[in-house]
Amino acid sequence: MKIGVDAMGGDFAPGVVIEGLAQALVDFPDIEVVLAGHKERVEFYLEKYGLTGHDRIELVHAPTVCEMSEQSAVSLRSKRDSSITALAKLLKEKKIDAMATPGHTGATVAATKVLVRTLPGIDRPALAASMPSKEGRFLLMDAGANPDCTPLNLTQFALMGNIYAQYLYRRERPRVGLLSVGGEDIKGNDLTKETFKRLEQLPINFIGNVEADAAFEGGVDVVVSDGFAGNVMLKGAEGLARATVHWLKKVMTKNAVRLVGAVLAKNAFVELKSFGASDVIGGAPLLGINGICIIGHGGSNPTAVRNAIRVSAECVKFGLNQRIVNAIEAAGDVAKLQKFPPENAANQQ
Amino acid sequence: MKIGVDAMGGDFAPGVVIEGLAQALVDFPDIEVVLAGHKERVEFYLEKYGLTGHDRIELVHAPTVCEMSEQSAVSLRSKRDSSITALAKLLKEKKIDAMATPGHTGATVAATKVLVRTLPGIDRPALAASMPSKEGRFLLMDAGANPDCTPLNLTQFALMGNIYAQYLYRRERPRVGLLSVGGEDIKGNDLTKETFKRLEQLPINFIGNVEADAAFEGGVDVVVSDGFAGNVMLKGAEGLARATVHWLKKVMTKNAVRLVGAVLAKNAFVELKSFGASDVIGGAPLLGINGICIIGHGGSNPTAVRNAIRVSAECVKFGLNQRIVNAIEAAGDVAKLQKFPPENAANQQ
Repeated sequence: MKIGVDAMGGDFAPGVVIEGLAQALVDFPDIEVVLAGHKERVEFYLEKYGLTGHDRIELVHAPTVCEMSEQSAVSLRSKRDSSITALAKLLKEKKIDAMATPGHTGATVAATKVLVRTLPGIDRPALAASMPSKEGRFLLMDAGANPDCTPLNLTQFALMGNIYAQYLYRRERPRVGLLSVGGEDIKGNDLTKETFKRLEQLPINFIGNVEADAAFEGGVDVVVSDGFAGNVMLKGAEGLARATVHWLKKVMTKNAVRLVGAVLAKNAFVELKSFGASDVIGGAPLLGINGICIIGHGGSNPTAVRNAIRVSAECVKFGLNQRIVNAIEAAGDVAKLQKFPPENAANQQ
Repeated sequence: MKIGVDAMGGDFAPGVVIEGLAQALVDFPDIEVVLAGHKERVEFYLEKYGLTGHDRIELVHAPTVCEMSEQSAVSLRSKRDSSITALAKLLKEKKIDAMATPGHTGATVAATKVLVRTLPGIDRPALAASMPSKEGRFLLMDAGANPDCTPLNLTQFALMGNIYAQYLYRRERPRVGLLSVGGEDIKGNDLTKETFKRLEQLPINFIGNVEADAAFEGGVDVVVSDGFAGNVMLKGAEGLARATVHWLKKVMTKNAVRLVGAVLAKNAFVELKSFGASDVIGGAPLLGINGICIIGHGGSNPTAVRNAIRVSAECVKFGLNQRIVNAIEAAGDVAKLQKFPPENAANQQ
């Protein structure tokens, strides 16, 4: 099995990527790696971690980098020889089975959408982010790939999320909810009300509307959303978590007694951070493209990189994409792109 | 000045409301109160807090209650004699200057929309929730009154939020941002892209798009959003905050050393909670209706009730609604309802 790895992705590339790769090569003896990145810079770190000339690493020179601050459409147009574009091309040509990048989400989504395209029957791919809850974790999708969505898109997200949750959470019948709003006379917006009717018809365990606060309580495995609201929920959670750490430091260091308490409870705070940690998961898959693509957090550590590679390989073994194609096929007309009359199809772009 | 107070609102009514009212009557000698609620139940608590026959309290009998679990449209239709409906009627007839309820957000939004109606020139009212950030606080609006919005709605929310932030945060030129998403080749969705162009034309301090995580960092006073994404952000933050407290308890009680640390730092945790506390603010105003209406959290304590009454009175003195009408008038065509051609106007319902 060949996994493409973006050596230039993330805030600490390529060092962190190569360190994570070194772990992955030891832990997963059945994978081969195609490493895309700036040759000289990558080779420096390969030597550092004793991987020079490794028989399971093939290096592809991709000199330019999609900086985290760049607009992704610009990246795609002006940086045809970036590591992300190189991997997307290899994925399209089936020269690799999957790709993993701890990098630029927007650039990766744009490159794979344009170059790799979607699976047969899928209108739009969606980013599936695994979020912590009191109970365990839940999958939020779309976490940001599509700012505007149709009911068909959300219906397909529900089917794809259902399959991915079967793999990720080892649940036979994941509980699938529709992200919505309450406290109002009409529950939800036009999009969710129309989507609700479709999700009821799917052969999945649809548990109805779920509010954002309820999702963090647990009781749901897949939270289906358009990419705008999903991204607001994801980014809002990240922002609040950082603010909470900031407030916690502030109140814990206010006097000597509290400070002693903080020192005694230090390991507890380290453990607290682990609830939100993304390194166990490695990254979020972009579900629905015609290939496996795992996108890690820009701040990925070596363990996250190692696990992104692991998840990529596991998705290939799981037959994720064939299962998705089968599920869309089996779901009936509510989830099918071609069954829609032309006047609706026009709205799907 | 007459403030209408919903005695039956919130999870701990009417006891908590009357206790908060007792504080407010002492602290704010220039207000009179019209108390709406179930006569016998309210009188029991009035007696308990020594307020029986108080010369600044007028009691209006409203026998039925909008339970927090009820759908609000149902509440409005079937419960014409609820405390919320009673106050909305008094507000419409200008028999009270403002109303405050620690109660059912959906029922209050529905009742005031239907009975009190919007200010001249305003299409939709919006709920303005004050959220904590590292730097201080920011106003999120709409926090849930309108699941579907137009660019005109968001433009008016920006103007209304700007005025309210001038009062609430004592800032002459609040920094107004548009809630959007990044990490994608196209920044924002159709709604925010269209809204962005309008906000640039307003005579306010518009600072551009703001992502949900950046809002929690600070640097913005008003975050403009449709009510769906806004509610997801608000509820998501509430849910994550509760989950964090849950995780914190779990990790702090794992062994004796941590437990000692937790006891020593106990006050720090109490203080930590205060960052998210809504009781200082009292509640979120529903901006844009033809009257002042402050909606508190269902879990309001007496201090929150007292402050909701305070904020109601302060908004009246500030001349909030006249300022909003003036701002809409001064903003030019981009913020005006009547300036839109009929084909667009049809979409605004």
